Amino acid sequence: MRTIELRGDKVVLVDQTQLPWRLVRVRCHSAEEVAAAIEEMKIRGAPALAAAAAMALAITALRSRARTKEQLMRELERAGGRIRRTRPTAVNLFVGLERVLSAARSAVDIDGVREAVVREARAIAQEDVKVNRKIGENGAALLEDGDVVLTHCNAGSLATVDYGTALGVIRAARSAGKKIEVIATETRPLLQGARLTAWELSREGIPVRVVTDGMVGYLMAKEMVDKVVVGADRIAANGDAANKIGTYSIAVLAKEHRIPFYIAAPTSTVDPKVKTGAEIPIEERRPEEVIFFRGVRIVPKGVKVFNPAFDVTPARYITAFITEKGVVKPGELSKLFKS
Amino acid sequence: MRTIELRGDKVVLVDQTQLPWRLVRVRCHSAEEVAAAIEEMKIRGAPALAAAAAMALAITALRSRARTKEQLMRELERAGGRIRRTRPTAVNLFVGLERVLSAARSAVDIDGVREAVVREARAIAQEDVKVNRKIGENGAALLEDGDVVLTHCNAGSLATVDYGTALGVIRAARSAGKKIEVIATETRPLLQGARLTAWELSREGIPVRVVTDGMVGYLMAKEMVDKVVVGADRIAANGDAANKIGTYSIAVLAKEHRIPFYIAAPTSTVDPKVKTGAEIPIEERRPEEVIFFRGVRIVPKGVKVFNPAFDVTPARYITAFITEKGVVKPGELSKLFKS
Repeated sequence: MRTIELRGDKVVLVDQTQLPWRLVRVRCHSAEEVAAAIEEMKIRGAPALAAAAAMALAITALRSRARTKEQLMRELERAGGRIRRTRPTAVNLFVGLERVLSAARSAVDIDGVREAVVREARAIAQEDVKVNRKIGENGAALLEDGDVVLTHCNAGSLATVDYGTALGVIRAARSAGKKIEVIATETRPLLQGARLTAWELSREGIPVRVVTDGMVGYLMAKEMVDKVVVGADRIAANGDAANKIGTYSIAVLAKEHRIPFYIAAPTSTVDPKVKTGAEIPIEERRPEEVIFFRGVRIVPKGVKVFNPAFDVTPARYITAFITEKGVVKPGELSKLFKS
Repeated sequence: MRTIELRGDKVVLVDQTQLPWRLVRVRCHSAEEVAAAIEEMKIRGAPALAAAAAMALAITALRSRARTKEQLMRELERAGGRIRRTRPTAVNLFVGLERVLSAARSAVDIDGVREAVVREARAIAQEDVKVNRKIGENGAALLEDGDVVLTHCNAGSLATVDYGTALGVIRAARSAGKKIEVIATETRPLLQGARLTAWELSREGIPVRVVTDGMVGYLMAKEMVDKVVVGADRIAANGDAANKIGTYSIAVLAKEHRIPFYIAAPTSTVDPKVKTGAEIPIEERRPEEVIFFRGVRIVPKGVKVFNPAFDVTPARYITAFITEKGVVKPGELSKLFKS
C-alpha cells in the first residue's frame, strides 16, 4: 500500500492518526501543509519522512510563480527550512531535503530546477520501495520457519513509501514460505504498534498479537519471542541507534534473554556526521500526548509527565543491522560506505 | 485515606475504576458484591484484597440468618469459595480468608463465630495500617535526600487499607525530612500508575511525574532514576516475586543500570508453600482490557492480544525486600519466619 504519493502538484498521504478507525488520505497543497502533517504525525516513520520532505519541495516548485532560478531557489530553501523544523530525530528527513535541494542548485535555469526537484522527489520514493525490498530479502534469511518476531512501533508500509523495513523483513520471510508470527508492542503513547502495525499485518493475513509495552520481559522470560526486529530513525557512525521510545528497553531485555535484536533500516538512516548516539537530538513532544487519551484525561491535573519520542540503543545491544547493502554488525557499519 | 472499611454490616470501598475522575465510594452488601468489586478491580492491591476478603466474610456472618454454628460455617465457607475464585495471584487474599475462617472454626457457638469473624476482619485491617507504617519506617532509611524513586502500578494507600507499601516507604522518607521525587509508570493496560499513584501522591503534594512504561530504559540511561521501589502480590520462598505486569522488565533494566530494586511488602505476601516463582499462578485477564480504551477500540478487529496481569521477577534482580520485620535480601527471607 502506498503511504505517500506525489499526484500532480499535490502530496497525497494516508492519515495515520485516523487508523485503524478510518483509512483516509489527505491532500497537501503546500510545503506548509506537509510540515503540519509531519508535526501532527499524520505521516511518520523515518523513510516516509524522507519522501514527504522531498515531495513538499516538489509541490513547492510545481506551484511556484517564481520567474527566475534564484527566486525559485529562495522559495525552495524557505520551504526546506520549514520542513527541517518539524521533527529533529529522523535523519532521513534531512537527507531527503538535502538531496532535492542539491539537485535543484545544480540545475542551470528555473525549468531545470523544477524538473530536478520533481525528478529527485520521485526517485526518492521509488528507491525507497526498492531499498525496502532489498532489506526484506537480506533480512528474511535471518528468520527461521516458525519464528515469533517481536517488533515495536511501526516500521512497516506506513513508515515507508510502501513495503516497510522491519515489517518488510517479515513480509519477505513469509514470501519465502516461512511461517512467521508477529508480536507487536502497542507503543505508548501514540499506539503505533496497536493501531498501525497490527492493522497493516492483519489485513494481509499475517498473524499478529498485540501486547502492552510492559509485557515484553514476561514474554521473553516465557521463551515466547525468538527474534526482535525494529526500525531506526537515526544510526550513529559507531552503531548506536535512535528509534521510537521503548526500543532501548526492549534491546536490554533481548540481551538479557539472549534473543537476537536486529535493526532493519536503509543505509540512508546512518548519519556518519554523528559519531555516537549521545549526539542524536531526541525530540520531546507535547505532554498532552501522555496526559490525554483521545480526549480523556488519564493523568490527574497538575501532574507532570515526560514525553521523549525516541531513545538510543547503544551498539552493544544490537546483533546486526539489516540494510539494503547487506547484514552488518554495528562495528562494521563503516564498510557500507567504502566505495 | 481509608481505601476499605467495615461499616456496620457493609463493606465500603473507594471505587478505583473511577479514579482520578471521581472519588466515589461503593457499598457492598454481600460477599458476592465484594467478589464482583474485586473482579472488576474496583478494589485491587494485594494487602487491600486481604482486607476485602476478610470483610466479605464479616458481612456474611453479620447478615446471616443461620441458627447454628454449622449453618453459619457453611455460609462462610461458601462465601470464602466465591472470594477465592476472584483473582488467583495475590496470596494475601487467601491468607486473609484463611485467617478469618480458621478463627471462625475455633469458635464454640454461632455467636462466637460471628464475633470471631468480625474481630479478625477488623484486626486484619488495623494490622495492615501498622505493618505499612513499619514497612515505611524500615524502607525510609534506604532512601537518600534528593532521591528520584521510580515505582510501577500502585502500591499506595489505594492498594492497602491506608498507608501503602512502596508509597508508604516514600511517605515515611518524606516525613523524615528527605526530599524525594517520584516517577510513576503509567502501567498499561489499566493505568494504575497514571490514574492512582499520581493521584494519591499529588493530592499530598509529593512531586510525581508520569511516564509511559516504555520510557523506563531511557530514564535510567539518562541517570534520572536513583532507586526503584514496587510492591508485590506473592513472594516465593526463594525470593522470586510476582507483581503487576511490567515489573520484571523494570527489574532487568534496573540491574543493567546498577540501580537498587526494592520490593516493599508485608511478610504476609510471602507464600512459603510456593518454592519458586514458576509455581505462582499468573492471572490472565480479559483481552478487552488491552483492546479497548474506555470504549474506544485501539487494536484492530480480529487481532489477538495477550493480557497477563502479573509477571515474576526472579530473586537475583531484587536488591532487598522491605518488610515490617526489617529489610532482608532475597536469600534471607526465611529468617523472617524463624521464631
